[in-house]
Amino acid sequence: MGAQSDAAMKWKRIGIVGAGNMGSMMGFAFSELGLDVSIWDAKSANVNNFMKQVEQAKGLNGRISGYHDISDFADSLRQRGGRRLFLFSITHGTPADEVLKLIKKHLMKGDIILDGGNEHYRNTERRQRACQGIGVDWIGMGVSGGYQSARHGPSMSAGGNNIALEEVMPLLELYAAKDPKSGVPCVSNIGPGGSGHFVKMVHNGIEVGMLSVICEAWGFMHSGMGLDYEEIGEIFEAWNTDGELHTNYLVKIASDVCRTRKAVNGSEAEDGYVLDDVLDKVVQDDDSTEGTPSWSIMESAMRHVSCPTLAAGFYFRVASGNREERLQVAEKLSMPDPKSFTDIKDKSQMIESLHRAVYCAFLASFCQGLELIARASIDEGWDISLSECIRIWRAGCIIQSEFIADLLEPFLQENKSFTNAKLNSCVGKELQRNFTALKDTVLRGLAADHYFPALSATLEYIKYTGGTMLPTKFMEAQMDYFGAHAYNKPGVQGEDPGLVAKGPHHFEWNPA
Amino acid sequence: MGAQSDAAMKWKRIGIVGAGNMGSMMGFAFSELGLDVSIWDAKSANVNNFMKQVEQAKGLNGRISGYHDISDFADSLRQRGGRRLFLFSITHGTPADEVLKLIKKHLMKGDIILDGGNEHYRNTERRQRACQGIGVDWIGMGVSGGYQSARHGPSMSAGGNNIALEEVMPLLELYAAKDPKSGVPCVSNIGPGGSGHFVKMVHNGIEVGMLSVICEAWGFMHSGMGLDYEEIGEIFEAWNTDGELHTNYLVKIASDVCRTRKAVNGSEAEDGYVLDDVLDKVVQDDDSTEGTPSWSIMESAMRHVSCPTLAAGFYFRVASGNREERLQVAEKLSMPDPKSFTDIKDKSQMIESLHRAVYCAFLASFCQGLELIARASIDEGWDISLSECIRIWRAGCIIQSEFIADLLEPFLQENKSFTNAKLNSCVGKELQRNFTALKDTVLRGLAADHYFPALSATLEYIKYTGGTMLPTKFMEAQMDYFGAHAYNKPGVQGEDPGLVAKGPHHFEWNPA
Repeated sequence: MGAQSDAAMKWKRIGIVGAGNMGSMMGFAFSELGLDVSIWDAKSANVNNFMKQVEQAKGLNGRISGYHDISDFADSLRQRGGRRLFLFSITHGTPADEVLKLIKKHLMKGDIILDGGNEHYRNTERRQRACQGIGVDWIGMGVSGGYQSARHGPSMSAGGNNIALEEVMPLLELYAAKDPKSGVPCVSNIGPGGSGHFVKMVHNGIEVGMLSVICEAWGFMHSGMGLDYEEIGEIFEAWNTDGELHTNYLVKIASDVCRTRKAVNGSEAEDGYVLDDVLDKVVQDDDSTEGTPSWSIMESAMRHVSCPTLAAGFYFRVASGNREERLQVAEKLSMPDPKSFTDIKDKSQMIESLHRAVYCAFLASFCQGLELIARASIDEGWDISLSECIRIWRAGCIIQSEFIADLLEPFLQENKSFTNAKLNSCVGKELQRNFTALKDTVLRGLAADHYFPALSATLEYIKYTGGTMLPTKFMEAQMDYFGAHAYNKPGVQGEDPGLVAKGPHHFEWNPA
Repeated sequence: MGAQSDAAMKWKRIGIVGAGNMGSMMGFAFSELGLDVSIWDAKSANVNNFMKQVEQAKGLNGRISGYHDISDFADSLRQRGGRRLFLFSITHGTPADEVLKLIKKHLMKGDIILDGGNEHYRNTERRQRACQGIGVDWIGMGVSGGYQSARHGPSMSAGGNNIALEEVMPLLELYAAKDPKSGVPCVSNIGPGGSGHFVKMVHNGIEVGMLSVICEAWGFMHSGMGLDYEEIGEIFEAWNTDGELHTNYLVKIASDVCRTRKAVNGSEAEDGYVLDDVLDKVVQDDDSTEGTPSWSIMESAMRHVSCPTLAAGFYFRVASGNREERLQVAEKLSMPDPKSFTDIKDKSQMIESLHRAVYCAFLASFCQGLELIARASIDEGWDISLSECIRIWRAGCIIQSEFIADLLEPFLQENKSFTNAKLNSCVGKELQRNFTALKDTVLRGLAADHYFPALSATLEYIKYTGGTMLPTKFMEAQMDYFGAHAYNKPGVQGEDPGLVAKGPHHFEWNPA
């Protein structure tokens, strides 16, 4: 702890901008680590609420002071010598710009701003340029793990000026979640520019795929196999204990979600499962409170990286959000409800297939996300280490998947230029080994009208990314017909496999 | 033809910028319509090649002149009175900007530029602003149908300044493809700004979905049912003659693609099917020669419109492009090849199911695209008529689907504010009526390891957009657990269905 305490001693104080859910949790955490904390929010009520919580909090070390005046707030961080450190916890986009505009005249040369919001990496780069002009370093810092991790130590991907980054790294290491196996802090200096926020964005993209997969699996067990919440909770717990999904955060909390009863927080009269109280609307994308999932899909399309599992999960939750319209459409479509299986011969085998299907789709989600990071890193000249991404996702974040990290990290560490994780023998073998389980599960689910957008998209993805002769041959011929797109010929040297570029042949299928 | 001839008389001359495949075809077409044509290209060789073709061409009316000097080219369009008319046929993005930069000093107040390239609508809007300053009207004009249609009359969606648009509409109507049923020209003044190019972009997005569906169907018949090219060609021809896929352009040319033999253009020694010469790489997205498909997916993600059929088709062709990497991955994954069906009991029933599955996925592609246009039209204040979009897609374009147009146009005409085509009883009924055929086909294909990304994505789409209780309920609960996302409760007035916005309830599943 020596070096870490030094970090707390060095910085002494941190200024948190934004006293919302995440900012508050960060305030508590840094106080616990021994730093004095100044906190300001554009909404005075947020500051007051937070300061009330501070009064009741235990185990705090550094002093926490709330500010309503932004000038007082900035002044409170002045100290002899060292640079001032700000941590922004603000909604991405316009709100963050407005706060920067407010605080800008109070900033001084040498200040470091950590932007812990889910910001788009291009906005981050824009603010980096704007702040460079006044000698301020703006660091785009992805913070993962939700408010629970913000309190106890999140996973962080920081990007920006390297000198500033190296200065704050010891403090971030102090705060970060620690890999339970190695004790190593889950934070990394990802690279220049917006690379840190880009990696966080992709983390959230992978999360979208995984969240869809796990809810599809839940639906399969609940309405297909007729298992009750407790039984499903036990299955998730077993998955999280042993095998390919062990120490997997979303599987862990899935077990809790199944078994949490209202009486924990309420009276016994209100008892029952909390899950029964939750409607099927995921609105965060529709009302734009969340940007990262849609940006991930946009980036995958823009950079031409095949991410069908992530996109299927995204479109599924988008469609879920507008429940009113969905119910109206339902009247017109009269779709069948998911059916329960009447022919379960071997229940445990069915669950084991599902288990492996979920793992396979999780792994595919990682492959898709990593390929997107690899492509962006080349495009933008960021030189991101994919093994570092995997390393910081080992604890404190939503996509924490220990088995998958153990599978991916070693070869990504050895081979820095990997841009396609499926090329690795271990990954290929894992996808191959679980293909039949995925296929059987998908067939079973689809036959009984279950909702399997991400699982079925994954099945197709695995098949076609490893297909040696795809029916896209016919697509290419059609495109040559109407658009003179020009093709390569099979079996011709220099053309097969050939470059990723237009071929030399066009046929006048229907002379104009 | 009176009014149309007037249009040719009025304009007298058109200046085409870009003598590539599309520009050349447009040059011939406008000459045929009686206009003198000036043509210029940054590459002199393109002009020379085109002028050689002109020498051999028959049936031309207006005089065609090629120019190497851009100033001479611009001067050639001067005429007493009227405005000068330019038609750009240039690759989108930087090349178009460079040409605009070159020609800008030769432009004069009152000039009208029709940009017939596949340009991103934001670039169009940027150029509209730039040209407005010098009194020039820049019209973003989507031109669909490939080079074949450019020659004989394409489908066009034009957007920009209304006065300029109304001036050129008679000429565009003269040039446009005509609906074979009504004779009405397939061109429309879509709206202001980049709306015309946006509509064309979505046309190409719908095309991506349809192209995938039809190649999946081809693979199913060829490697699954063991049908040879001639047999498949006959089936496509039958589909294109009668029923839900009649007068459907992609189905029509699918039949030709199956049956075209090399000897048509070559010697008999080279005979055989052209299709056998075509490799399975669709590279246009990977090498960025095509922008519209990826932009469509980006827009659907950004605007939160569920477009899984289009995205599945897009990711499929993206994955097909890098064949070299794919073959390497194939070695690791050892995926099974699509199997032939050994248990075909009723071949014609199997084909009829496939027929209906293809139709259902085509219709779903239209629904997804129309919803994307509707959303953008609201966001951007374009006031686009969806029925006009359907109307101009009735001829001259790649997604021409007469049955679907007949289904969609009437109710879109009556109800201008429709944003979800599935809400219409007819559309809902059609999707519902073909759901079982789609499901049976998908199950059959997946069981035999066929490639069905777009077909299986459509099955999920239809199910969940009309689902009354989705497993996303579990996703919402997980997101509340780690992110305090806050939910609505089922059966509570004001919450179910409630707004597309965060709910009022958060549960501390695991108190921090």
